Amino acid sequence: MFMRIDKLQTEIPAPKKQDPNAGAALQELLGGKYGEMSTLHNYLFQSFNFRSKSKLRPFYSLVASITAEELGHIELASNGVAMLNNGPDKPAHEKGNQDVSDAPYKDMQDIRLAASFLSNGGGAMPMSSNGLSWNMDFVTTTGNLIQDLLHNFHLECGARLHKLRVYETMTEDTGREICGYLLVRGSVHAHAYALALKKITGVAIEQMLPTPNINLSRIPECQKYLNEGSHRRLYRFSPDDYKEVSAIWGNGEVALPGDPPGELEFVDGHPEGGRIHDLMGDTRAFTPDYHPEEMFEIATKLYEHSR
Amino acid sequence: MFMRIDKLQTEIPAPKKQDPNAGAALQELLGGKYGEMSTLHNYLFQSFNFRSKSKLRPFYSLVASITAEELGHIELASNGVAMLNNGPDKPAHEKGNQDVSDAPYKDMQDIRLAASFLSNGGGAMPMSSNGLSWNMDFVTTTGNLIQDLLHNFHLECGARLHKLRVYETMTEDTGREICGYLLVRGSVHAHAYALALKKITGVAIEQMLPTPNINLSRIPECQKYLNEGSHRRLYRFSPDDYKEVSAIWGNGEVALPGDPPGELEFVDGHPEGGRIHDLMGDTRAFTPDYHPEEMFEIATKLYEHSR
Amino acid sequence: MFMRIDKLQTEIPAPKKQDPNAGAALQELLGGKYGEMSTLHNYLFQSFNFRSKSKLRPFYSLVASITAEELGHIELASNGVAMLNNGPDKPAHEKGNQDVSDAPYKDMQDIRLAASFLSNGGGAMPMSSNGLSWNMDFVTTTGNLIQDLLHNFHLECGARLHKLRVYETMTEDTGREICGYLLVRGSVHAHAYALALKKITGVAIEQMLPTPNINLSRIPECQKYLNEGSHRRLYRFSPDDYKEVSAIWGNGEVALPGDPPGELEFVDGHPEGGRIHDLMGDTRAFTPDYHPEEMFEIATKLYEHSR
Amino acid sequence: MFMRIDKLQTEIPAPKKQDPNAGAALQELLGGKYGEMSTLHNYLFQSFNFRSKSKLRPFYSLVASITAEELGHIELASNGVAMLNNGPDKPAHEKGNQDVSDAPYKDMQDIRLAASFLSNGGGAMPMSSNGLSWNMDFVTTTGNLIQDLLHNFHLECGARLHKLRVYETMTEDTGREICGYLLVRGSVHAHAYALALKKITGVAIEQMLPTPNINLSRIPECQKYLNEGSHRRLYRFSPDDYKEVSAIWGNGEVALPGDPPGELEFVDGHPEGGRIHDLMGDTRAFTPDYHPEEMFEIATKLYEHSR
Amino acid sequence: MFMRIDKLQTEIPAPKKQDPNAGAALQELLGGKYGEMSTLHNYLFQSFNFRSKSKLRPFYSLVASITAEELGHIELASNGVAMLNNGPDKPAHEKGNQDVSDAPYKDMQDIRLAASFLSNGGGAMPMSSNGLSWNMDFVTTTGNLIQDLLHNFHLECGARLHKLRVYETMTEDTGREICGYLLVRGSVHAHAYALALKKITGVAIEQMLPTPNINLSRIPECQKYLNEGSHRRLYRFSPDDYKEVSAIWGNGEVALPGDPPGELEFVDGHPEGGRIHDLMGDTRAFTPDYHPEEMFEIATKLYEHSR
Amino acid sequence: MFMRIDKLQTEIPAPKKQDPNAGAALQELLGGKYGEMSTLHNYLFQSFNFRSKSKLRPFYSLVASITAEELGHIELASNGVAMLNNGPDKPAHEKGNQDVSDAPYKDMQDIRLAASFLSNGGGAMPMSSNGLSWNMDFVTTTGNLIQDLLHNFHLECGARLHKLRVYETMTEDTGREICGYLLVRGSVHAHAYALALKKITGVAIEQMLPTPNINLSRIPECQKYLNEGSHRRLYRFSPDDYKEVSAIWGNGEVALPGDPPGELEFVDGHPEGGRIHDLMGDTRAFTPDYHPEEMFEIATKLYEHSR
Repeated sequence: MFMRIDKLQTEIPAPKKQDPNAGAALQELLGGKYGEMSTLHNYLFQSFNFRSKSKLRPFYSLVASITAEELGHIELASNGVAMLNNGPDKPAHEKGNQDVSDAPYKDMQDIRLAASFLSNGGGAMPMSSNGLSWNMDFVTTTGNLIQDLLHNFHLECGARLHKLRVYETMTEDTGREICGYLLVRGSVHAHAYALALKKITGVAIEQMLPTPNINLSRIPECQKYLNEGSHRRLYRFSPDDYKEVSAIWGNGEVALPGDPPGELEFVDGHPEGGRIHDLMGDTRAFTPDYHPEEMFEIATKLYEHSR
Repeated sequence: MFMRIDKLQTEIPAPKKQDPNAGAALQELLGGKYGEMSTLHNYLFQSFNFRSKSKLRPFYSLVASITAEELGHIELASNGVAMLNNGPDKPAHEKGNQDVSDAPYKDMQDIRLAASFLSNGGGAMPMSSNGLSWNMDFVTTTGNLIQDLLHNFHLECGARLHKLRVYETMTEDTGREICGYLLVRGSVHAHAYALALKKITGVAIEQMLPTPNINLSRIPECQKYLNEGSHRRLYRFSPDDYKEVSAIWGNGEVALPGDPPGELEFVDGHPEGGRIHDLMGDTRAFTPDYHPEEMFEIATKLYEHSR
Repeated sequence: MFMRIDKLQTEIPAPKKQDPNAGAALQELLGGKYGEMSTLHNYLFQSFNFRSKSKLRPFYSLVASITAEELGHIELASNGVAMLNNGPDKPAHEKGNQDVSDAPYKDMQDIRLAASFLSNGGGAMPMSSNGLSWNMDFVTTTGNLIQDLLHNFHLECGARLHKLRVYETMTEDTGREICGYLLVRGSVHAHAYALALKKITGVAIEQMLPTPNINLSRIPECQKYLNEGSHRRLYRFSPDDYKEVSAIWGNGEVALPGDPPGELEFVDGHPEGGRIHDLMGDTRAFTPDYHPEEMFEIATKLYEHSR
Repeated sequence: MFMRIDKLQTEIPAPKKQDPNAGAALQELLGGKYGEMSTLHNYLFQSFNFRSKSKLRPFYSLVASITAEELGHIELASNGVAMLNNGPDKPAHEKGNQDVSDAPYKDMQDIRLAASFLSNGGGAMPMSSNGLSWNMDFVTTTGNLIQDLLHNFHLECGARLHKLRVYETMTEDTGREICGYLLVRGSVHAHAYALALKKITGVAIEQMLPTPNINLSRIPECQKYLNEGSHRRLYRFSPDDYKEVSAIWGNGEVALPGDPPGELEFVDGHPEGGRIHDLMGDTRAFTPDYHPEEMFEIATKLYEHSR
Repeated sequence: MFMRIDKLQTEIPAPKKQDPNAGAALQELLGGKYGEMSTLHNYLFQSFNFRSKSKLRPFYSLVASITAEELGHIELASNGVAMLNNGPDKPAHEKGNQDVSDAPYKDMQDIRLAASFLSNGGGAMPMSSNGLSWNMDFVTTTGNLIQDLLHNFHLECGARLHKLRVYETMTEDTGREICGYLLVRGSVHAHAYALALKKITGVAIEQMLPTPNINLSRIPECQKYLNEGSHRRLYRFSPDDYKEVSAIWGNGEVALPGDPPGELEFVDGHPEGGRIHDLMGDTRAFTPDYHPEEMFEIATKLYEHSR
Repeated sequence: MFMRIDKLQTEIPAPKKQDPNAGAALQELLGGKYGEMSTLHNYLFQSFNFRSKSKLRPFYSLVASITAEELGHIELASNGVAMLNNGPDKPAHEKGNQDVSDAPYKDMQDIRLAASFLSNGGGAMPMSSNGLSWNMDFVTTTGNLIQDLLHNFHLECGARLHKLRVYETMTEDTGREICGYLLVRGSVHAHAYALALKKITGVAIEQMLPTPNINLSRIPECQKYLNEGSHRRLYRFSPDDYKEVSAIWGNGEVALPGDPPGELEFVDGHPEGGRIHDLMGDTRAFTPDYHPEEMFEIATKLYEHSR
């Protein structure tokens, strides 16, 4: 079972301008081969299909609790895409030409992924930066523990690569912050799967890290997270379960050489997180609708009634 | 953000025999057009992309909290698939011929979805009963509130239809229980989206329920859930958020005519749930591996160390 | 623009038993690479995209009018699939066990394409005999006239091959009749595209026919159509247009050597056709619903009102 | 069976310039989720798979006859795409640089959907504005009457949304006229399915219209169609069949509140329609070929012979 | 550039009976996620896209020369599929009922992948055991050397797992021999990529082998290849190039602990190989055609002329 | 079996600038419907599945040996894509801004296929110019000899059309040279399949050539290949096999009318070919890595050791 909390895992700044091609680039981190849909669903299905859970508890718990963090990652990436596609949070009537018959969206013919506007009104979708759907070919769940963990390690290294390249295309703060945060957290997961593999095979595969061969200290947006020690922390993301993870992440293991030093910690709960932006509607895009006023009024009454 | 709890939403019985074609049928409820991957990702992306959240709070909260329940539904369906594919929980050496060179899996050539064994070792995958991948074509997130809610209502009616038909193919208890539980909960979601639409449009669309036109009292496996009042209950699935849902589900609204009568309730937390089965490995399928003994020993030591 | 007539292009017998695997085989003729979805959409899009129509009128008209016949072919193949999946036309209560809780459809777990029942209640879908979706990769519309006509000729030869092989798997009359009829008509189209290519390039490509190298007289189900001269006839399938086709099909051209001799004719209108079967519903499959009685009554009243 | 008429359903103006990105946007209306390929094939397969036709005649006839109109809609959208991709109707030698070795199409590297030129020579394809193939995941044919009608209602609302957004990107007349026409006709279909649902369930679902919440009178291109009463008219699109539709569309039912008032009419035949443009070839694109002169001559002779 | 030799990489026995479901299982090794299409195209595209070839020569050469071996692997797997689908090599007239109108292929309705017969006449296709197409989602070519090599190591471990499971379903010799041979050769590739990774990162990742944790000596069909030392041998598969591979495979490195001991060798040329079976046609399947006699005569004359 | 040679089939010039949209256009020749992945895999699988090889030797050998040439074609097209995506061969530090935190790749958000950079670091992939995966729907292998050869003829005509259109978009030398070379070689294959069809059916289908109707002498980049007589030459691409091809290509057959005259020749071996460019890495793209120096040093030592 899962519970939901109405916050993002970190605070992200609002975009200063509408930038659908930046949103399209960020889609790669959401629905590309090494995107968050892939990490999420690999761990989700591996945890469902995990064999001999009772005998392999720490490994099961590792995969299961990271799954919960990944849910927050697709939320973060998706919020970023929607925010970049929709632009600054201002009321609809300040968003430009309001006349639907005057081609107010003529620019949308030239954005890279026109259907993001035409079909989804600027919303995020489980697709890559080229607009292709995420699908099960990105999921590995063989039931063989070594093979699955090895895949996860490789996947997280690939995710670092993706995030770095997407970051290198980004000129505005919303996308850069998301890349920075996800780089730190994804690097933790790469490290965690390396430690799991090491425990079970004896091979010091964490010495392949960082792959690609760059320390996150070179990324300004990663800095505050490194300072906080986020790179040394795995969260339990559960009220009561998965405590056995501390046998893998913790237990005297330390940060990777190129990162700020210190012991690894398995932490109760979840990060404090940041607010979810309001994502103001645009009547010309019929989001939430062309005449939403009555809707707003109904909702307000219902809301008041519910308190 | 999301949290995870190491339980299923309800207790399901272990299968009495290995039955991969029953597992394949259950895949329709997981990755088919109206399966749980579809309901989950529709609400997930709609909640991420929701416009004017602050002005439409009860509607946003409805979609957001149902999302959390759907995560538990894919967990339930996936566990069912894996259990049916793998058979009763008995140690590997009791599972039949142990000689890998003696074609111990010759029957797997004739099951409907051979790749479920060959690639996934009996694990669940985000695919339909015909083995096709779930993909973004099953996600509707237009940003227009009426259109999205209407889609959700239609989706949940379709899900009822799927579940009924899958149920009608099932002869053993694992799959039947899952169908029974999901039928009750899916019917709640259909009702909830109908009420949301009624609040916002004034149209009494809940009068189209039940679609298909069958009361769940005809399904023996639904009976105990109806008796408990599960059909009148939406769970908050959150420590602190989404309380505004009670303005839609609750607030004097009552159960549908053909169901046991009573008021609708928006309930804190989550159902008590049931245990996750151990899904014992099979060395011949290399799950978790051919010689897992050393693995088990390492895990046991780590586990003890972690307590 | 298109008009519709509520008949099939030929009369087909009702199936004597429900046979979903026969229906699945027939799907290859509907949604396989060389199926009717492919022939239809190739000619449809080629006719839309046809360059210099006014200067190439007979060729445009040939493609455009064959398109209309192909619409009737997908209708015929689809009706066949649905009929085989659903079995003989008898009232629901004669269709076997009526208790939804007694696994009345347990056999549906073992049919080749389980989703045909689970998702489509036995309906036809634009997919192949392996359950894969028809898609645009099967459409050739280059705008180059020779290339497009050459593709069409090749496509119709492939369609003959498909139909022959599907026919060789069929033991009951519904599917055999459909194969027989489509073999005759598809062979006409192969011949027609060959003549078009010959007119425009001078190459006697019709001498490659029949490919595969079998005369239809070997197929008993083709015999009555050959006797009627169907192999010498193209229909205009239009109230007033496309008359220029007679410059290609007709005009002294004659039947292929292995077929009954005679001149080719371009005929006004359409074949007389046969009735569309009623495809009786099954309440257990919720088609048209579990309790359809009220529905039937409403429909009857509306119907009477409309006369 | 189907017949074809060599006209479009309405007259559309020729484009003033070649505009492949406008053509790409229009592809969304052809092959996107809510595009005309989707509406066509939903109704086509629902009509083939319709259960208990004889007992549900008015509903069967509604779906069956709207199918015929949808064929004309994909024709209209496809013609628009091809016209925008190919530009004004002028002879090849006036289309710019004629030297194939001088990169006459260098601009085609930067258009959104380069394969529209490279593979299809500017022709329309059954794909979305992002270039993805239409496929069976967009088809709903459950055999349950309420579920299928509900889907159709939702689909037509989605189609309105798509058309409005595509319209808002269009600056030239060809695309705008097509959007305007299809908006009026699609709104009729939404209304028709709403009425069908109301007849059969008693729920006044037509009160959800218009969704999105905008009257077509705000769209100048819709105006002349509203003036003609097109919004009150369903065509039979059949020489003799489907008359029972008048029991649903007609029979005292009236136009929606925001539209010009009046009774709904079920009309014999089809709209008068407009001419199909010649779509002049371009020798540099090898459409119909590089040296088409001989081809034209052959065709002319054949044409004369055929009269 | 590539050259072709008209032999298989090893001798495989003819099947004793036609067994399409065994052929379908073998398709997993051809077009499944970890099949030979995947290994081939990963190394093919990595070799094309390899950065700084001149500075990383031994690594480039390793990937490039293994590519050539993989081409022979898809040939081997494909031959196996076609042989199992087509059965023993006997003349068409001994293959059973020759009357096309007597449903000679009625059994083909019930095989797992009916389109293998209907569309491909028993030929192999680039698809999985569930009939899904191989596609680019199975290709990793990031340009980052560590990431790509790590992927290849993981891919070859996955391929071992696939091959073992497919082998466990096989009761006849054709498929078992192919599995046995490919298991030995795939294990060599896993070992080779491990050594490459070790050279470049210092991590002793070859200690994870064998994954899955089973020595090939348990597979009787692997035995003769182990006896020959095939597990210690990489072939150059080139007249003159790629010699630098000996710096990785060779150079004092030895066989893995569980395998017969000895030094690794980089060998000139290619294995001696075995004959390609004739794959006798079947006139009823129109392969090569219904009346192939004239074809055979023409070919014989041409052949004699060519000598 | 296949062997590999470390050269391209012809010499291609380095690009003068990075031009990802030109690379994207060239992808159509690699992974589009008529691209080299299609020609390769059609002939590869047809050669694997070829029926009655011993009786149809010259035809089998033709398909089998052309397959080997096609491998070199995907190599050529892929090298071109990667070179255009990566730009001139200069050391990483001359490639512009080296600071990963300064958005050095901001332009990559606006290229047509952003994932080519984000996922593949500029590498080629088996996809079309619209970014869609190549897949098995592009493979025809029916086992019927006429149908398969006819398909191949049509495919090569389509490939000519594709190559001409891609060429017409190219302004720089790398892509133009590749188009020029492939046009000549593809035209040879079209001619060869036409001759094979003529031998076996008697139909002079080669008279349809050239399709499209343009002689290659109009393409300056084809000129030197025509001068060398490349259009009259098929290569054996094998040390010892496939000699029977000379019965089809050769044997008194001559060049097509519009090409430089002369006899067709079946030539031993392969063309001399050209060098494979080094494709210098870019540290900012992490190709081969961010700090590759140590890697280079290891490789150099290994390389020296291997000589």
